[in-house]
Amino acid sequence: MRKTFAVLGGDLRQLRLAQLLEQDGQIVYRYGFDQEPEQSSLERAVTADVVILPLPISKDGHTLYLPFSTATIALEDLWPFLDSRRQLVCGGNLQEPLRQQASEAGVNLTDYFCREDVQIGNAVPTAEGAIQTAMEVTETTLHGVRALVTGYGRIGKVLAQDLRGLGAETVVSARKFRDAALADALGFCTLNTEALSGHLGAFDLIFNTVPAVILDRARLAELKSSCIVIDLASEPGGVDFAAAEELGVRVIWAKGLPGKVAPLSAAKVIHNAIYHILEERGEPI
Amino acid sequence: MRKTFAVLGGDLRQLRLAQLLEQDGQIVYRYGFDQEPEQSSLERAVTADVVILPLPISKDGHTLYLPFSTATIALEDLWPFLDSRRQLVCGGNLQEPLRQQASEAGVNLTDYFCREDVQIGNAVPTAEGAIQTAMEVTETTLHGVRALVTGYGRIGKVLAQDLRGLGAETVVSARKFRDAALADALGFCTLNTEALSGHLGAFDLIFNTVPAVILDRARLAELKSSCIVIDLASEPGGVDFAAAEELGVRVIWAKGLPGKVAPLSAAKVIHNAIYHILEERGEPI
Amino acid sequence: MRKTFAVLGGDLRQLRLAQLLEQDGQIVYRYGFDQEPEQSSLERAVTADVVILPLPISKDGHTLYLPFSTATIALEDLWPFLDSRRQLVCGGNLQEPLRQQASEAGVNLTDYFCREDVQIGNAVPTAEGAIQTAMEVTETTLHGVRALVTGYGRIGKVLAQDLRGLGAETVVSARKFRDAALADALGFCTLNTEALSGHLGAFDLIFNTVPAVILDRARLAELKSSCIVIDLASEPGGVDFAAAEELGVRVIWAKGLPGKVAPLSAAKVIHNAIYHILEERGEPI
Amino acid sequence: MRKTFAVLGGDLRQLRLAQLLEQDGQIVYRYGFDQEPEQSSLERAVTADVVILPLPISKDGHTLYLPFSTATIALEDLWPFLDSRRQLVCGGNLQEPLRQQASEAGVNLTDYFCREDVQIGNAVPTAEGAIQTAMEVTETTLHGVRALVTGYGRIGKVLAQDLRGLGAETVVSARKFRDAALADALGFCTLNTEALSGHLGAFDLIFNTVPAVILDRARLAELKSSCIVIDLASEPGGVDFAAAEELGVRVIWAKGLPGKVAPLSAAKVIHNAIYHILEERGEPI
Repeated sequence: MRKTFAVLGGDLRQLRLAQLLEQDGQIVYRYGFDQEPEQSSLERAVTADVVILPLPISKDGHTLYLPFSTATIALEDLWPFLDSRRQLVCGGNLQEPLRQQASEAGVNLTDYFCREDVQIGNAVPTAEGAIQTAMEVTETTLHGVRALVTGYGRIGKVLAQDLRGLGAETVVSARKFRDAALADALGFCTLNTEALSGHLGAFDLIFNTVPAVILDRARLAELKSSCIVIDLASEPGGVDFAAAEELGVRVIWAKGLPGKVAPLSAAKVIHNAIYHILEERGEPI
Repeated sequence: MRKTFAVLGGDLRQLRLAQLLEQDGQIVYRYGFDQEPEQSSLERAVTADVVILPLPISKDGHTLYLPFSTATIALEDLWPFLDSRRQLVCGGNLQEPLRQQASEAGVNLTDYFCREDVQIGNAVPTAEGAIQTAMEVTETTLHGVRALVTGYGRIGKVLAQDLRGLGAETVVSARKFRDAALADALGFCTLNTEALSGHLGAFDLIFNTVPAVILDRARLAELKSSCIVIDLASEPGGVDFAAAEELGVRVIWAKGLPGKVAPLSAAKVIHNAIYHILEERGEPI
Repeated sequence: MRKTFAVLGGDLRQLRLAQLLEQDGQIVYRYGFDQEPEQSSLERAVTADVVILPLPISKDGHTLYLPFSTATIALEDLWPFLDSRRQLVCGGNLQEPLRQQASEAGVNLTDYFCREDVQIGNAVPTAEGAIQTAMEVTETTLHGVRALVTGYGRIGKVLAQDLRGLGAETVVSARKFRDAALADALGFCTLNTEALSGHLGAFDLIFNTVPAVILDRARLAELKSSCIVIDLASEPGGVDFAAAEELGVRVIWAKGLPGKVAPLSAAKVIHNAIYHILEERGEPI
Repeated sequence: MRKTFAVLGGDLRQLRLAQLLEQDGQIVYRYGFDQEPEQSSLERAVTADVVILPLPISKDGHTLYLPFSTATIALEDLWPFLDSRRQLVCGGNLQEPLRQQASEAGVNLTDYFCREDVQIGNAVPTAEGAIQTAMEVTETTLHGVRALVTGYGRIGKVLAQDLRGLGAETVVSARKFRDAALADALGFCTLNTEALSGHLGAFDLIFNTVPAVILDRARLAELKSSCIVIDLASEPGGVDFAAAEELGVRVIWAKGLPGKVAPLSAAKVIHNAIYHILEERGEPI
């Protein structure tokens, strides 16, 4: 059965998500995209079966994130119109105290971002975003550079393969024996993440995927002056940023890459996740 | 024996070239980089054994290309100070009438750009620049797109491998049977460049490497509306640009990529070419 | 501290293992290799700190596996000479009732085969052995064939990459969503192992890595007549062998590939495992 | 228009060629395959529009090569039945004096083997055959070996890519600067074929594709004792075989790999070549 969807605000990724749903033949209420010909009123939007909040919901903690609109909507004014018993109200990367506030207002938010399908789906645009970032900040080609990828989870696996595909000499470090052994079996030179010291001076580029401070002051001090670190890890990141600044090490903390470098691909990931959520709730499309 | 080199003006690539020569222990006179601590006077620079002109020599046809300097030097004032009988005076991508003017002033310019080592050396940064451009202009990842590379010369070979390395479904077109057969042997699906019609609607991205109008009006009309064309060919390019504009096809004519996306790699290519030229003149370093 | 090692019988892999240990400077007693110049007596061999039994220990269940010797040693005569309290007595792929018999004779056997380092270490030679087997049994090149790899564990990951590296059109099937998503992220077309029916007629080669009957009668009936199945799974294999025979499907159950196709690589895996075991027992070398 | 084809003798490749032609709907007379149900008489076969001789035509220089038949046919008895004015009479790898004898009997033989489409088409099975040979003769996996490919023509390009695809550390040597530069651009470490001395001790496997004695006594003396040389070059091969034998270097001169390792793929190459020849003669199928 066809459902109604509301896409409330957000950036290009949300707009693309609305378009993908329309291409499926769904009824979509778009709010917060002033330049778009087919805007809905907020009143109508909040009646939808599925309400998709922007990513992030709010930048200032109080108002809805509406970068493509001149409107201002306070979150506390929005919650009363929503009802998570009859609607699926979902958003991504939901943090406290926002989640708590919504809950007190009777709205249980469903977070699609912590789902495994979204995490894996974002590995490819994250890896490509890392490649693009590296291309933009270096004065050399990736072909021929010596690159280290720390961590061999989803992002590490895709990124290492991409770097090798472009001709970078790619070394993978992992903490667990089984991950390092797999990287080796797939043809990468490997290091133990806990024993990186003494090896770091060789690299032109380091991509960190581990959300723990892998690159502390002592390790940063080993890097050659032209080495650039691209940190892909979520909070707290993988670098002692203060030490890096003191030592003059160039670090780029690249967060939220999928939405930035590939909004359409990122929208598809969210699109698929929402369909999966509906399926799991017994409301298949 | 050590030689003296003058690096006259130009962009970041020229500055990196000067630094590479210094790293080799050469004496280098830099002129036209006002922010750099070690500037030489023009008077001293023109006495060097090897004079390296900017790339391009001039943007306006009259004055030296000095983007990093407030100085203005008329070419006709420069030539009298140079003497190609005792100096190697070289530049890249030299065009008439400039070459003729220099010659009349007694300066035979050596063009390093038409050399095969430079052409091959630039294939890698050109291919990576094409990848970077595609990443920047698309809203999707390259992973999963259907990409066509027209032409299977140096750039086509590297670019096709890079695209495949990133997970793009990559098709190669070539005009000569032997090129198509090689692409097939290396694992690519292939098309005949002369029989592209009827196949073009499948592609999300088209990279042209052939300096001939491959994509004429009829073929452009076949493309799907979201398809983006990245033209890497030198003049006259591979696209009927007027038709593309009328049809609303997005075309990016990406010229001079090595200097833009990888100035240090581009500088190395020129550095090596100048050493090869000296060797061929019997003045090895 | 140096240790003494006994390598008792077995095939080429055991002989290579003995040589690797010697290259490390260990004292090695070799028994069961009649053609080798440096044989030890069995009496001396059983005094070693580490006793390495053949792989398998026995083919007939009663006597030691000594393919390179004319000697016959009953297992029940061997156990009394060994003492697992003062010696490490190890073997691979140990099965009942043999393990029980040894235990009753006071010898606790340590199995190196079930260790993760051995399992991962064997993934590469197993995948290459599968490639070699496929090359030997097909009349075509792997380049251009349509190949299916069922299962995306260690062997599946390496094998799929190898096949793609040789230009085979490679499809991966996995049961778990996360495995299929990773295969997709690494650039493979994917199928759900539980929904293979209807897709199987497309393949020229099927490599099974899953130890469960994936290819039952109905699925086997879908295969085209020229399709060859190479089963890499341990017991009970992944094919209904009786149905395959009736239907005329060619199936090769390729077991023990590492020892057959790459005995030296296989010996290195065991060598490393034995060192790891000693380290874990607090007797590092 | 349909044509009649005679496939006279030869090995499995010829039999597969006959089957491919039948699959196209052609009328095919098969002679020299005693076990096959549909044999033609020689009398009928020689009336075909296209007569395809075995590869090679003869092993002893006098009789047709009929390994799958008990019949013996002298070539001098065959020629009078053929007429190259009304028939296409073709064979592969034709050598004097055989070609001359046929010509004197009024039969101009068309050699499909020297055609570029056949040469390129055979590069893939030759490269795979080299891989298979290496797998069979080594005790290690190709993953992790250090391999040298001398020559970067068609076979060198495919073979180097295949080896890298399997995880071998692959170095390419070329004589011409442009070939080495391309190999480098495609991500291989390179050596100059004329300056191999001093570098050869590093390799576990050497694949030669150059039909000139690249590996002379002095170079062979550099190889480590476990190094194996696989020579893919046509006469005179790339190795000083006498020196290799004296020095104890293991050399495998692998000739005619496509027919041996992939007869069906090899048959397809010939099949396509014959169609191309007919097209070029203005007799398209």
